[in-house]
Amino acid sequence: MKYTDTLLLTRKNVADLLSLEECINAVEEAFKLYAEGKVQPPKILGVHNHKGGFHIKAGLIEKQTPFFAAKMNANFPNNMKDHGLPTIQGILIASDGGTGQLLALMDSIEITILRTGAATAVAAKYLSRPDSKTVAICGCGNQGRVSLKALMKVRSIEKVFAFDTDSVRADKFAKDLSGELKVTIEPVTDLEQNLSHSDIVVTCTPSKLPFIKPEYIRPGTFIAAVGADSEEKQELYSELLISNKIITDLTEQCATIGELHHALVNGQVTISDVYAELGEIIAGKKEGRISGSEVIIFDSTGTALQDVAAAAIVYEKAVSGGIGKKLNFSEQESNYNPAIKKKMK
Amino acid sequence: MKYTDTLLLTRKNVADLLSLEECINAVEEAFKLYAEGKVQPPKILGVHNHKGGFHIKAGLIEKQTPFFAAKMNANFPNNMKDHGLPTIQGILIASDGGTGQLLALMDSIEITILRTGAATAVAAKYLSRPDSKTVAICGCGNQGRVSLKALMKVRSIEKVFAFDTDSVRADKFAKDLSGELKVTIEPVTDLEQNLSHSDIVVTCTPSKLPFIKPEYIRPGTFIAAVGADSEEKQELYSELLISNKIITDLTEQCATIGELHHALVNGQVTISDVYAELGEIIAGKKEGRISGSEVIIFDSTGTALQDVAAAAIVYEKAVSGGIGKKLNFSEQESNYNPAIKKKMK
Repeated sequence: MKYTDTLLLTRKNVADLLSLEECINAVEEAFKLYAEGKVQPPKILGVHNHKGGFHIKAGLIEKQTPFFAAKMNANFPNNMKDHGLPTIQGILIASDGGTGQLLALMDSIEITILRTGAATAVAAKYLSRPDSKTVAICGCGNQGRVSLKALMKVRSIEKVFAFDTDSVRADKFAKDLSGELKVTIEPVTDLEQNLSHSDIVVTCTPSKLPFIKPEYIRPGTFIAAVGADSEEKQELYSELLISNKIITDLTEQCATIGELHHALVNGQVTISDVYAELGEIIAGKKEGRISGSEVIIFDSTGTALQDVAAAAIVYEKAVSGGIGKKLNFSEQESNYNPAIKKKMK
Repeated sequence: MKYTDTLLLTRKNVADLLSLEECINAVEEAFKLYAEGKVQPPKILGVHNHKGGFHIKAGLIEKQTPFFAAKMNANFPNNMKDHGLPTIQGILIASDGGTGQLLALMDSIEITILRTGAATAVAAKYLSRPDSKTVAICGCGNQGRVSLKALMKVRSIEKVFAFDTDSVRADKFAKDLSGELKVTIEPVTDLEQNLSHSDIVVTCTPSKLPFIKPEYIRPGTFIAAVGADSEEKQELYSELLISNKIITDLTEQCATIGELHHALVNGQVTISDVYAELGEIIAGKKEGRISGSEVIIFDSTGTALQDVAAAAIVYEKAVSGGIGKKLNFSEQESNYNPAIKKKMK
C-alpha cells in the first residue's frame, strides 16, 4: 500500500504562489468548461449557529489530470470585536480527482480574495463597455483592493472613486493604491453623485441593507455585485434587477444567496429573467454586452469552480517550486511516548 | 489580529488517542443530543466522476464549547488494483464552533472505522436481545474487526461466525481475534446455515448485490447493516425490510444511500414504515426492542454526528497530551527563497 505526502501551504505560501493574472485566466477557463458541460455542477453545504457559520464549496475539474477541491470557510461576523480573531477563517482541501489522494491542505483566505477579484475581472472583460475608464469601488477592504487590481488587467482605468462607511479606510485605500497602480483614486462619500459618473461599479461590502439605488446608475454601466454571498447580505436595491441584464456566476446559487435571491423573494424578477451564467457568455453560447447603453449586473456569489481553478495553480506551482511543508497523514509509526499513550487510554 | 496554530494529527495519532470505549460513549451521547433537538441536522455533499467520488459530512455539536467537524472521504474502489493506493482516503477538519478557529486537521480513516463500529455497538445495546451470545460478521476487513470488538463491549458474546468472499481473510480474522478477544471464532461459508443460528448479524462488505435473504434470519435477531453508504451499495434483500422493525441512523440519509433506499425504490416500504432513528431510542422517545422475537434492522449509513463526536475526543486528548505537529496556516512570513518567488511569478 502506498501512502503519499500531503503538502501544507500557509496563507503566505498561497499569496506568493498565486498571481492575479494566472488566477484570472484559470477562472475564465473554469467558467467556460462548466458552460461546455465539461465540469459538473459544484456543490455547497452550510452549517450555522447563532454566532456564525461554516460553508463548504466543492468541485472537480477534469483537465489533463482531474483535480478536486473542497473549501471550508468559517464566517463569524463578531470575531474581531469579541475575540480579536479574523471574521473569515478557512482551509482548502485539494485531492487528485482520479485517485482521491490528498494532495494539499492550504489556507483558503488568499484564494477566496483572489478568485473573487478574478471573477469580477472576467465578468468586466465580457460585460463592461470596452471604453470603460471610471470605476467606483464600494468597500475598501482586501476584496476592494484586489477587485481594482483585477479590473485594471482588463480595462484601461483612469479614475477610481473609493467609498467606505469608514472614511479612514477609503483614504488609506486611495493613498496605498494610487501610487502602486498609477491611477487617480478619489475617496468620496456621495454615492449618487459619483456612481452616476462611473462606467464600472463594484460592491464588496458586508452590508445587510441595500445601498445602491437604481437612480444612481447611468446607462451603459457594468455592476459587479460581490458582497452578497449569504441570504441575509444585500447591496443593491432589488428594483435594480428589474429590466436590467442579470448575469450570474451560478444561477441556482444566486437564487439562494445572491442579489437575485432578494429580487426573487420580493417577486420583482423570476429565474427566467436571468439572462445567462457567466460561463455561457465566455463559451459564446450567449452574447454578452450588445449595446453601449445597457446596464449589466453580475451577481457574484463565489463558486467552487473558481476555488478549484485557483487551487490547481497553487498546487502545481508549489510542487514545481518545492514550496510548503509535507506531512504523511497516513504514517504508521507513533510519534509520541508510549507511556503517555498508556496513561491516556 | 490573533492567528492560532492548527494541530496536525496523523492516522497513527488518531488511533493512539481514540479508544473504542470513549468512542461508543460519545457516539451514544451525540445521537441522544440530536434526538433531543440539541444538535442541528448534519449535512452531506457528494462530488463524483467515473472513477470514484468524494463525500463530505459536516456537523456541529453544542456542548460546553461548540465543536464543528467536516469530514472529507474519497472513495475510489479500483485504487488498490490500479494504483496500489487505499480505496478510502480522507481528512477531517475540526473547528471551534463558536469562533470558526481551525483547531485541527486529522486523518479521517481511523475515525470512520471506529465511529462506525461504535454506532453498531450503541445500536446493539438498545436493539439486540440482552442475552445475545452469537454473532455473524459478514465482511472480515477492518470494519468487521472493529464491529466485533465494539459489540463485545455491550454484549457477552461467546461464539462468532466469520464470513468473507475471501476465505483467507476470514481465516486470518478468526486467528487474529479469537486469541485477542478470547472468543470462539469459526470461519464459515454457508450463510443460511450459520445466520439462522446467530443472535446478531453485522454486514460490513462493499457489496453492490444483496446477499442476506429473509429466510436466513431467525426471530429475535438484530441486524446491523453497515456496508451500504452510497446508492449503489446493498447487502440485505430489500424484502427483509418488509414487516421487520427498521431503525435508521438518520432516516433522510438512509432513504438516499442506505438499505432503506432500495426498499423505497422497490416500493416495498414507505418512509412511514421506519420505526425510529437510533437517537429517539436512546433518548427514550420511542421504545427499542419490545419482544424477544422481533427482527430489528439498524440501517447504518454513517453520520456527521458520529464524526463530530469522535473528532472532539481526539482533539481534546491531543491538546491535553501535547500530541501532534502544529502549523499556523495564517503565518505572515514567507518560508522560501525570494529569488524563487520572483522567478515563479
